[in-house]
Amino acid sequence: MDVRIAYQEMIRRSREIVLLASCAELLAWDEDTYMPPGGVENRARQLAYLAGLQHDRSTDAHLGDVIDELKDRELVRDPLAPEAVNIREMLRSFKRHTRLPRELVEETARVSSLAQHEWAVARQDADFQRFLPWLARIISLNGGTAKLYDALLEDFEPGMTDAGLARLFDELRRELTPLATALTQARRRPNPGVLRRDYPVERQRLFNESVAEAVGFDFNCGRIDATTHPFFSTIGPGDTRLTTRHHPASFGDGVFVTLHEVGHGLYDQGLDPDHAGTPMGDAASLAVHESQARLWENLVGRSRAFWKHFFPRARRTFRTALADVALDPFYFAVNAVEPTFIRVQADEVTYNLHILIRFELERALITEELKPADLPDAWSRAYRHHLGITPANDADGCLQDGHWAAGQFGYFPTYTLGNVYAAQLFAAAERACGSFDEAFARGDFSGLLGWLRAHVHREGMRYPAVRLIEHATGSPPDPRPLVEGLRRKYGELYGI
Amino acid sequence: MDVRIAYQEMIRRSREIVLLASCAELLAWDEDTYMPPGGVENRARQLAYLAGLQHDRSTDAHLGDVIDELKDRELVRDPLAPEAVNIREMLRSFKRHTRLPRELVEETARVSSLAQHEWAVARQDADFQRFLPWLARIISLNGGTAKLYDALLEDFEPGMTDAGLARLFDELRRELTPLATALTQARRRPNPGVLRRDYPVERQRLFNESVAEAVGFDFNCGRIDATTHPFFSTIGPGDTRLTTRHHPASFGDGVFVTLHEVGHGLYDQGLDPDHAGTPMGDAASLAVHESQARLWENLVGRSRAFWKHFFPRARRTFRTALADVALDPFYFAVNAVEPTFIRVQADEVTYNLHILIRFELERALITEELKPADLPDAWSRAYRHHLGITPANDADGCLQDGHWAAGQFGYFPTYTLGNVYAAQLFAAAERACGSFDEAFARGDFSGLLGWLRAHVHREGMRYPAVRLIEHATGSPPDPRPLVEGLRRKYGELYGI
Repeated sequence: MDVRIAYQEMIRRSREIVLLASCAELLAWDEDTYMPPGGVENRARQLAYLAGLQHDRSTDAHLGDVIDELKDRELVRDPLAPEAVNIREMLRSFKRHTRLPRELVEETARVSSLAQHEWAVARQDADFQRFLPWLARIISLNGGTAKLYDALLEDFEPGMTDAGLARLFDELRRELTPLATALTQARRRPNPGVLRRDYPVERQRLFNESVAEAVGFDFNCGRIDATTHPFFSTIGPGDTRLTTRHHPASFGDGVFVTLHEVGHGLYDQGLDPDHAGTPMGDAASLAVHESQARLWENLVGRSRAFWKHFFPRARRTFRTALADVALDPFYFAVNAVEPTFIRVQADEVTYNLHILIRFELERALITEELKPADLPDAWSRAYRHHLGITPANDADGCLQDGHWAAGQFGYFPTYTLGNVYAAQLFAAAERACGSFDEAFARGDFSGLLGWLRAHVHREGMRYPAVRLIEHATGSPPDPRPLVEGLRRKYGELYGI
Repeated sequence: MDVRIAYQEMIRRSREIVLLASCAELLAWDEDTYMPPGGVENRARQLAYLAGLQHDRSTDAHLGDVIDELKDRELVRDPLAPEAVNIREMLRSFKRHTRLPRELVEETARVSSLAQHEWAVARQDADFQRFLPWLARIISLNGGTAKLYDALLEDFEPGMTDAGLARLFDELRRELTPLATALTQARRRPNPGVLRRDYPVERQRLFNESVAEAVGFDFNCGRIDATTHPFFSTIGPGDTRLTTRHHPASFGDGVFVTLHEVGHGLYDQGLDPDHAGTPMGDAASLAVHESQARLWENLVGRSRAFWKHFFPRARRTFRTALADVALDPFYFAVNAVEPTFIRVQADEVTYNLHILIRFELERALITEELKPADLPDAWSRAYRHHLGITPANDADGCLQDGHWAAGQFGYFPTYTLGNVYAAQLFAAAERACGSFDEAFARGDFSGLLGWLRAHVHREGMRYPAVRLIEHATGSPPDPRPLVEGLRRKYGELYGI
């Protein structure tokens, strides 16, 4: 076969698979935003069917032949050329997909679609028993074939191992537990009560959309909706959607959730459109994706420079709530450190302890050391142990996240990896461009976004995630910038 | 092949095709409601791809073999048994689909998706030139293979011919033109100005949702959104969606558009769920579908009995606007007859003249007697001739409807057939149940809905459309009940 023809055939097939996935992406977005309850059964059938088609395309023997034809040819001589990257990643994806039988893929899609619905109801009613049989089914679908946790990790963060993660979490626990304790006991205290005043939802929505636009989110190619559990979803090129939530008596929730999802959105809006539908035009990994979300949420959104620009606007928008509040107490309030039950509302310091708990529990569920029925007790014990608090019910406990309902075991650790990468990337960007403080204070985020576009977004899957971080920051994954950044920032704030 | 196995195989394939269609249905719904502008190219690719897959499944030779196997067997002995109906309709659909090459189907889906976007922009700017190249392309896709208008009609209303329609329109024109003229010249006049006062959009939305619920629309299995050009869409069992629009200075538009789409929705919500994904669980035809919309919009929604119930609620909801208005002047106002430019806002009497104009123009476009570039002039001439008015721009003229942009030539006549069927069905329901006036005045629509469920909705495609009307009303399609009903109602209102 002519190598150019073979390569074009591979790309055509890649684009077809991605197009099918993009149809499923819209169905899933709609399920979480606008679908009426009665549509749930049909939606599960639709998603299962599309998952089956995608699986067929992804495991087609002819695709395997084409990749085989290409993998030792001159096209892969420079391993960083787009063609070599696409061939490498298509081969990896082909091998991964051919390991799974079609029936399992369809059944997993069907069960997860239904389970997510059951989870949402169970969470609303804080009724773990309702969710239990679904959790058990999903675990058996994930673990039933004696898959190890390493294999699940491989799906989400290729190259990362159970042992590597365990070491990383050990280091973070060793550093962050004493820091969290010291901050909780510090004499200087923020007043987070100012964030829990009357913040009209419609004004929050407008404020947050203006923040999203200011940092660079393109509303011509995206939108923001409201859901109970925020998420982001790229339907396809030119169509990147986020969801957020607004509570009338909480300012912080809406703006930081929005910035988090906007960070995801900026990544996808920055992917190279010329490579759309191929690995070179796709995100490097989940953890790199998460790094973009956490970077905009925390390193930008919880910085003093950011609020130097946005706080006057916030005061104009929420006149009553913020009438008696000045910038510095406000900045301190949005950085209050306190052990809490809900991961997505956790501060930067305790956040990784929430992930550590989930990492330990999901490993135990998959290896069957922990029975699904015993999850609520194990969850409470872990929160008592690591954070010193006990959730009052399962909605604030093991039902708070939808990941397990969606069958995503091995996903949570990517959140902490995201924090680690974010700190490394932000430090590297400031080394290259100088401090962003002045620009942020002027409302100019283009310097940071430009650096991320060049060093992360536009690179697509050119490098495996770990290599991308190394290439962009000069160092392999390393928790020290995260730990040092937190020590410095919170040491100053709390005066310890 | 065992006949039961063959039948089950046919049903499995039918359900697969319908499931694919239901994925495309959501993509199309989203395109018209929430998709950001940047997503338009990818959406066109998605829809073209799914159309191609659907075409492959619909024309699969093995499906043809299975149907062939079944079509002369004992299963079809009773032609009204569900099995016989499904075999008959699958055969018809198979024949129709195998006539069209896959490339044409994909290209049509792709071009229509883009053309609808261009049309929406062109309409907004009243810029026909922008839409012209797209219209020309769509006409060539529809007419290019020397398809006759009969063949296009066959897609939308099987069994209806060009000649039959021309006769029907002749009769309607003969009867309705003098009636419209007489009403326009009558001395007793309504005051439609009371409908053009200040009607806050949010209150309209709540009022119209309460009306939708009262007549039987199930919000657990459906939703209502806002779009410029209202439509309805059934994503699948349990998920029927309508869109409507509200103008802050118009009451009538929102409520009647809503009732129209609700009429469509009630039909789909009344289909037999046990037969979902097969012809027995599908609507009989577009015209029968339209009959349900027009029945609820006009025969229910513009009746005095309906407003006897809802007018007090309307007065409570719109205190300022309706403070000085009583029931009878209000009832007269919602039934004002006046030649206007916009089809979807037309009164019952002139409505069919709008359709007549489109019927004549689209026939001329398809047969190439009319060049696309000459459409605006031809449109203006036709409005002057039939309604005595000339639109000031193309947004109020030939750009007002999206049907041609969507490639739906042969669709418009089903609107008038719908009016004809609606009048026949309503008369038959009242013959069977007695007058509904008292029940409507109490806000009880269950008698009418129950009759329609039994005689139309639950019958699915058991009868070809024309036979369904005959079976339900005792008479073949007949314009007299429509004409007589209009004469009686408007004669009383206008005192002529």
